[in-house]
Amino acid sequence: MASIFTKIINGEIPCYKIAEDDQFFAFLDINPNAKGHTLCVPKKEVDRILDLDEETYMGLMAFSRKVGLAIESAIDCKRVGMSVIGIEVPHVHVHLIPLNGMEDATFQKKETLSNEAFEATAAAIKAKLQSSI
Amino acid sequence: MASIFTKIINGEIPCYKIAEDDQFFAFLDINPNAKGHTLCVPKKEVDRILDLDEETYMGLMAFSRKVGLAIESAIDCKRVGMSVIGIEVPHVHVHLIPLNGMEDATFQKKETLSNEAFEATAAAIKAKLQSSI
Repeated sequence: MASIFTKIINGEIPCYKIAEDDQFFAFLDINPNAKGHTLCVPKKEVDRILDLDEETYMGLMAFSRKVGLAIESAIDCKRVGMSVIGIEVPHVHVHLIPLNGMEDATFQKKETLSNEAFEATAAAIKAKLQSSI
Repeated sequence: MASIFTKIINGEIPCYKIAEDDQFFAFLDINPNAKGHTLCVPKKEVDRILDLDEETYMGLMAFSRKVGLAIESAIDCKRVGMSVIGIEVPHVHVHLIPLNGMEDATFQKKETLSNEAFEATAAAIKAKLQSSI
């Protein structure tokens, strides 16, 4: 069965999309640790990050860097953290999380945002993306 | 002042070393989330991951992948997670963490290991490293 992320990539489930190229897709986490928390996903459905072939892994990291730089410039934060866990959804995803303190990185505290706030956040990040994505 | 990681890289502070090349250095986290928790650090002292130039960032991710594959094969775990936070030490470091559940990824639970257990863990991971590091 297709993962929830594959359904998002295919447009079967709506999302606040940030960026897409032929191999990767980025969208806002709807249960964010902090405003601007974004997931970067390979379109190829693989469970564990280290099971990606080297080229796809490196492509995902390059894509995540571009999205991360846009987040860092759009969102008020001290830095953007990265996390790959994957216990809950068996489809590789890089969490990019605007951090203002350690508590934003621990997945214990969640932020509630309105639909309008999600849309404004996605628009702000997209406006900072380099045109190369 | 040199960061604690620069002092480790320079041998001024001892560590359980895993791997080293001309640009990067990997060693066991001495306050691990789980046995085998390893840090991958660029020798160049930069605070935030997205401030690394693209080449160094990509090199760090390639190095972390090689070390992560060795950890996944040496340590009893479901997968290896990756985290870049950097709130506590202002020198870029990629956490590679053997995960058996979400609690291994949240930095709330810590593992206590003896000196002998750290040494055995480092030896087991090093034995699985590809010769290309």
